[in-house]
Amino acid sequence: MIAVIGAGTWGTSFSTVIANRSDVLLFARDEEVVNNINSLHENVRYLKGIKLPLNVFATSDRRLLSDIDDVVFSVPVQSIRQVIEDFKPFFKESVRILNLGKGIEISTLKRVSEIFKELLPNSRYSVLSGPNFAREVALKEYCATVIASELEEESEYWQKLLIFPYFRVYTTDDVVGVEISGGLKNVIAIAAGVVKGLKYGDNSKAALITRGLAEITRFGLKLGARQETFFGLSGVGDLLLSCTSFQSRNFRAGALLAEGYSLEDIKKKLGSVIEGIYTSEAALKLSKKLGVDMPITQQVFAIVNKKASIRDAIDSLTSRKPLKEFY
Amino acid sequence: MIAVIGAGTWGTSFSTVIANRSDVLLFARDEEVVNNINSLHENVRYLKGIKLPLNVFATSDRRLLSDIDDVVFSVPVQSIRQVIEDFKPFFKESVRILNLGKGIEISTLKRVSEIFKELLPNSRYSVLSGPNFAREVALKEYCATVIASELEEESEYWQKLLIFPYFRVYTTDDVVGVEISGGLKNVIAIAAGVVKGLKYGDNSKAALITRGLAEITRFGLKLGARQETFFGLSGVGDLLLSCTSFQSRNFRAGALLAEGYSLEDIKKKLGSVIEGIYTSEAALKLSKKLGVDMPITQQVFAIVNKKASIRDAIDSLTSRKPLKEFY
Repeated sequence: MIAVIGAGTWGTSFSTVIANRSDVLLFARDEEVVNNINSLHENVRYLKGIKLPLNVFATSDRRLLSDIDDVVFSVPVQSIRQVIEDFKPFFKESVRILNLGKGIEISTLKRVSEIFKELLPNSRYSVLSGPNFAREVALKEYCATVIASELEEESEYWQKLLIFPYFRVYTTDDVVGVEISGGLKNVIAIAAGVVKGLKYGDNSKAALITRGLAEITRFGLKLGARQETFFGLSGVGDLLLSCTSFQSRNFRAGALLAEGYSLEDIKKKLGSVIEGIYTSEAALKLSKKLGVDMPITQQVFAIVNKKASIRDAIDSLTSRKPLKEFY
Repeated sequence: MIAVIGAGTWGTSFSTVIANRSDVLLFARDEEVVNNINSLHENVRYLKGIKLPLNVFATSDRRLLSDIDDVVFSVPVQSIRQVIEDFKPFFKESVRILNLGKGIEISTLKRVSEIFKELLPNSRYSVLSGPNFAREVALKEYCATVIASELEEESEYWQKLLIFPYFRVYTTDDVVGVEISGGLKNVIAIAAGVVKGLKYGDNSKAALITRGLAEITRFGLKLGARQETFFGLSGVGDLLLSCTSFQSRNFRAGALLAEGYSLEDIKKKLGSVIEGIYTSEAALKLSKKLGVDMPITQQVFAIVNKKASIRDAIDSLTSRKPLKEFY
């Protein structure tokens, strides 16, 4: 039995992958979601229309964790500290963690691996990220993803467990790179959505995404990430996916901002957490500490927080003087 | 006066950029195109519906080159040797060249810079490539591009000449990287089109593009290119543009192949040269010489030349065993 904490869209979809090999205990906060999954085998709120495997069981009872070695976290980054605290008393000490959450904690500027190190120092941590729209994964569309751990046996453990003909798992030891590329791509996706919403052409969007990649790579390198990770599945792969499809919440949020919707309306409209909004704030703060120039992140933060009009933000990006390429 | 040789879609569109700063003499083979441009100020065949600036003059008379220092080439790579030979007697000896063509000559496995070195050893060569759909450029949509030359003063000369608020020019000295990334992205775009035509999801396409980037980077590194170029505008930028939009001829060709159209029908349908078809053959030959594994290129070549069914080709890609990421 493997536990999945967080029954949002991605946590629910990911449970269907695990269910190919093991029973899944899916933790939901909301009793309605728990009941839906157990009686209808469907997460009506977050993954409507998709039948879940019969061996996905939902619960909100943390005591059921006592026998479980492997725990998957699919929780928004700004809440993950609280969720770990809530679950901690029920975990085995050396619990194996696979984190699916992407971003940086605003209050501490920590990545998720750092939060786990702080709160559960004996846990064995891995993180998964890649170009994986939840709905397509649940529909068993072919996809590829990457799992990072500092401990090779950990990433390989999860790889062996989760690999299927339609779900291809690569491994790496670059935890920082996977966490940063997976998190910051959401910020660039908001920017790409804005550009799309303003009806700029494909050329403009491609230029933005390319400079966005350079920007998040610069940032990652400063934190000790490896460059190649940014050109892999959790980097380029997820970035281009999130920046070119309306399946991406962050992209849609950007497009709606450009169309004049307020942040409150957008949050209501999209229903679930738009990670890029929070990540833009955390990344901007951290970039100032690190001394990294992040023009796109800065403008996304400004737009989201109404510190600049969208036109001014875009103008400030497009009027930068191009010199030599990189970085 | 700056000459542009080749009045196809991109050559015509690119003339509108130059025309912001200089008169343009646009060489067309076809008298109908010449007459259209000079009388209607429109290239009805290749860039229909877009009015050209009045200072774009068309001609087929090579003698008009005698006073011209700067020549832009926008010619399909498999014909460029012949075109250079035809124009050579009319060039100044140290003519300045900006090449817009992308690919590898099948008969010699040479890149365009190598062909120029062979035929016009005293010319000063630069190459331009980036995420630039011709029609959007002609409509003055914001875009960015990169110009490479071994001589810094050459790339900077063109940068100064061609930079405008809507047309952002970066420079680099990595000629090999720009030529290879710009050329091989057409092969990956055909593969992406096939995947789209088969109705695979966005996740699948993102995985393919990411592995495609790794593949063409591997190839470029063997030829002496710099890695960073593949993550820039002529690499990632152009790759994602060509792999996600039906504006890309190569992408459309792939989608039509998947829908069962024959290569002949597709060529007729799309009207102009589909560079990726030829590049797949040249790159595959060259990769064998260099000992680089290029699974996607190999399958594109196999599909285009009916050496494999589309299903078998895709299966052979998706069943590869993923291990560590890169390269």
